[in-house]
Amino acid sequence: MSKKYNPLSVVFLGGVGEIGKNLTAIKYGEEILIVDCGSTFPSLETPGVDLIIPDFSYLKEHKDNIVGLVVTHGHEDHIGAIPYLVQEIPNIPIYGSNLALAIVDHKLKEKKQTAKLNVVEAGDKIKLGSFEVEFLQVAHSIIGAFALAINTPHGLIFHTGDFKIDYTPIGNSKPVDISTFARIGNRGVTLMLGESTNVEKPGTTISEKHVGKTMDKIFMANQDKRIIIATFASNVNRIQQIIKIAEKSGRKVAFSGRSMINICEMALDMDLINMDRKNLVEIEHIKDYPKEQTCIISTGSQGEPMSALTRMGLGIDKVVVEEGDLIVISSSAIPGNEKAIYTVINNLYKRGAKVMYGSLEELHVSGHACREELKMMLSLIRPKFFIPVHGEYRHLKQHAKLAQDLGIPEDHIAIAKIGDEIEIKAKKMQLIDDAIPSGAMFVDGHGKVSHEIIKERRQLSSEGVIVVVCKVNRVTKTLSDDILIKTKGIDVTEEMIDEIKIYAMKAFSSLELQDHAFDEEKFSQACAKKIMKRLDKLTTQKPVVIPIVMDDEKGLYE
Amino acid sequence: MSKKYNPLSVVFLGGVGEIGKNLTAIKYGEEILIVDCGSTFPSLETPGVDLIIPDFSYLKEHKDNIVGLVVTHGHEDHIGAIPYLVQEIPNIPIYGSNLALAIVDHKLKEKKQTAKLNVVEAGDKIKLGSFEVEFLQVAHSIIGAFALAINTPHGLIFHTGDFKIDYTPIGNSKPVDISTFARIGNRGVTLMLGESTNVEKPGTTISEKHVGKTMDKIFMANQDKRIIIATFASNVNRIQQIIKIAEKSGRKVAFSGRSMINICEMALDMDLINMDRKNLVEIEHIKDYPKEQTCIISTGSQGEPMSALTRMGLGIDKVVVEEGDLIVISSSAIPGNEKAIYTVINNLYKRGAKVMYGSLEELHVSGHACREELKMMLSLIRPKFFIPVHGEYRHLKQHAKLAQDLGIPEDHIAIAKIGDEIEIKAKKMQLIDDAIPSGAMFVDGHGKVSHEIIKERRQLSSEGVIVVVCKVNRVTKTLSDDILIKTKGIDVTEEMIDEIKIYAMKAFSSLELQDHAFDEEKFSQACAKKIMKRLDKLTTQKPVVIPIVMDDEKGLYE
Repeated sequence: MSKKYNPLSVVFLGGVGEIGKNLTAIKYGEEILIVDCGSTFPSLETPGVDLIIPDFSYLKEHKDNIVGLVVTHGHEDHIGAIPYLVQEIPNIPIYGSNLALAIVDHKLKEKKQTAKLNVVEAGDKIKLGSFEVEFLQVAHSIIGAFALAINTPHGLIFHTGDFKIDYTPIGNSKPVDISTFARIGNRGVTLMLGESTNVEKPGTTISEKHVGKTMDKIFMANQDKRIIIATFASNVNRIQQIIKIAEKSGRKVAFSGRSMINICEMALDMDLINMDRKNLVEIEHIKDYPKEQTCIISTGSQGEPMSALTRMGLGIDKVVVEEGDLIVISSSAIPGNEKAIYTVINNLYKRGAKVMYGSLEELHVSGHACREELKMMLSLIRPKFFIPVHGEYRHLKQHAKLAQDLGIPEDHIAIAKIGDEIEIKAKKMQLIDDAIPSGAMFVDGHGKVSHEIIKERRQLSSEGVIVVVCKVNRVTKTLSDDILIKTKGIDVTEEMIDEIKIYAMKAFSSLELQDHAFDEEKFSQACAKKIMKRLDKLTTQKPVVIPIVMDDEKGLYE
Repeated sequence: MSKKYNPLSVVFLGGVGEIGKNLTAIKYGEEILIVDCGSTFPSLETPGVDLIIPDFSYLKEHKDNIVGLVVTHGHEDHIGAIPYLVQEIPNIPIYGSNLALAIVDHKLKEKKQTAKLNVVEAGDKIKLGSFEVEFLQVAHSIIGAFALAINTPHGLIFHTGDFKIDYTPIGNSKPVDISTFARIGNRGVTLMLGESTNVEKPGTTISEKHVGKTMDKIFMANQDKRIIIATFASNVNRIQQIIKIAEKSGRKVAFSGRSMINICEMALDMDLINMDRKNLVEIEHIKDYPKEQTCIISTGSQGEPMSALTRMGLGIDKVVVEEGDLIVISSSAIPGNEKAIYTVINNLYKRGAKVMYGSLEELHVSGHACREELKMMLSLIRPKFFIPVHGEYRHLKQHAKLAQDLGIPEDHIAIAKIGDEIEIKAKKMQLIDDAIPSGAMFVDGHGKVSHEIIKERRQLSSEGVIVVVCKVNRVTKTLSDDILIKTKGIDVTEEMIDEIKIYAMKAFSSLELQDHAFDEEKFSQACAKKIMKRLDKLTTQKPVVIPIVMDDEKGLYE
């Protein structure tokens, strides 16, 4: 007699069909294990929004069944939404590497929150309900990155996390242990969730070590210059390389930008960065040293609006960029950030600095596996079922195709979308729900911003706003023809003003007031609708119309 | 005794410090020769704007002295603003290639305008006032592209236009005649204006012929599929190559997208595209043929909002994309368009199509000279003075450095900005004015949109709008505390509403009404200012505040 098992399923709440805000729930019976809880950055399409996080409705509904949250690493798209999750569901135990959890802890402290943070190391196995999670070291653009081998009563689920294959990592990272993946594969993997970020890129990624070699050359060739390097604050290995080279060439080092200072302080405390502390200077004091004996490591490599590098370009930073400075941008542009980065580069050039950037030289390497590495991982793991994750639709599709080329049958591969629950059975995967409450939540400094508000802002931005003040006498049931119009973000012609008045009147007369009392809300809606429709027809403009109803009981305006 | 010459200068009205809206005025004495009159595309930072054009104030002021407008080629950034210039200054004679002027003519007709259009051919010389302009054929991503050798009483000005070196051009283009440039160089060039678009790219561009080879392979490998190729409508040579290959493989061809249809019809009429007309099918009828025997050439390679390819992705186009279709995007992303293009690609994948894109294969080659070609041109022309054009600041700076490396003295090189007038003297160049009226004009379907309006829209979009209705009794000089508040694009808390009321009251009491009459305008300004300041301090939000003043003479609301 076989033991009765509960069903096993995966609920996708973020990170599929998009790059960012990764959030996956693995469900065995009622038990839920969460993998990652990331945020994504707003764009010009979400004006006034500071952060985009996943919708937690599903997790809140099942909060008593959550056995834990495991984080693969400390990047924002994997941990950025944790403070918001903790706010809603305070008691989830969280597991991750020392650096990842130090970053989480910092975020929580900023919001005066606490959570149950449990540091794990590569090789650790923890039991969370019916799940046993083994943390496997992978190389990535941050220290303390894990793949996960999650044992369930239905067999192993292998989650790659974000990874690359780096045979010659630097700093504190051990070389990637391919035999570990082979061991996992040999145990037999029921389901693999594989990251897809670089599936469009052929070949293999370049080792982080190459960036060190490039930096070495740059420091040698620019001994007469102050060197300012912008890179990702979380890329502790790269920062360690830069510091070593700076120290070797007799330079003092300063960190610039809030997140650079925070993360580097953590990394120093945790011995993830090794340096002679007397070479470390606060950014305020770096100008006291001869320029050519200093090196500044800065945020802003994505052209972020108020980052250190952007401020340097604008001449409003503590660090005043001048002729004779060398600025090295050690990153590649995240799609959508290109224009902002180029603006910063133009500004730095205008201040007389020399700027190195782009893919010409090996100033940056990716942290994500390219096609050959993805193939290697699939070949080592040889999963029964495969679901590509961490990618826009085209990435997922191409990763699925790759898996198919490697021999996984088409019906053993699924492309998931946010809101899907896929059940893993002995012989097949099955989409059992495609409408799990999910999606994006917008957050600004004051909390959540509704989708409705964002929609209004977008309309306001492209077409402006027209305020229409109508004076209504509720007793005589009349609308005064003295209608007042104010606008912002749109120029209205005399013709438009006349039309607005006519259509406000039409809205009023459509109300059938002879039988009913005047309903302000109803009138406002009809008024806005009619005017918008008319202006669209007349001028193809669709401004936001705000009707204001004023009482005119005493016939004040007649 | 030497003849008395007038001064020679160049006035930069667009296309320096930016890529787009090229407009240069070359001035000898009072005479003005205009080179190009381009537009640039709006971004999310200019909401609701359809087109950005140069400020024509300077040209309007000197309109009686304009001897002509010469256009280097028919791309939007070189001709897109001509209808707006013609509207302001109707009688300027315009000179350019047959294709460039056909595109201009089409634009003018759309606006029911006419202009004096004069077609010139490569090798033609025309006399315009004291200037003699020779049109020299260059290779570019459009047929009929010229460099200009402009003879002036102070010697030759050489303007490269947009160019690349293509030893194996296709279609109707003759191979680039390097000896022509050598001849110009041997005549002695006083000033060279050189395009800088690709100065960041090492080496040389790839010949357009390579794209044909790639397309050949793609057609061979996909004989069972309908093939849809998106590219720039103006790249007539590429379209010619695609048509040839389609015809060879027995496919019917249809054009999709307004500009593709327009330009291809012109090119067919002008014999710039050669094909068997019976292979050309209207887009509405292409579905009547077996799919694998058809090829659609479409607009939308930049992910433009309502373009044919974007509509196909959304499933709202005449062409219904399905499983088994192959879509080839033969372009590279113009910075800023990446996200839009990826969205289109994701949508096409979701419809089951196979999509080829990106730089992996030679699906596209640039039309702009890379570093080695720029060096060759500078070496052939050997100008006395050099001003890099067509580039953002970093491009101009790098091109200037290149010229310096090739032996042009630093003080013979100038980096210009929009609004600069640089005089060319025998021994030096001199900035004689840096504040020529100039800049960007925003245009939408209804005409010009002011910078103020755009500023308002940006503020509306990031923070929303608050309408504050205040009832004022002008006789008793009192403000009713019954203040009405309406919002769009922002959520206001009870606390914010209270503060808004308090600060409206403060604005009112600051007016010193005991001695003066109530001034509605003054109050509105003070009210908006005080409320905005308070909300910023309280919540860091900066919504647009629109105060509305209502008369409360009879104490209606007390």
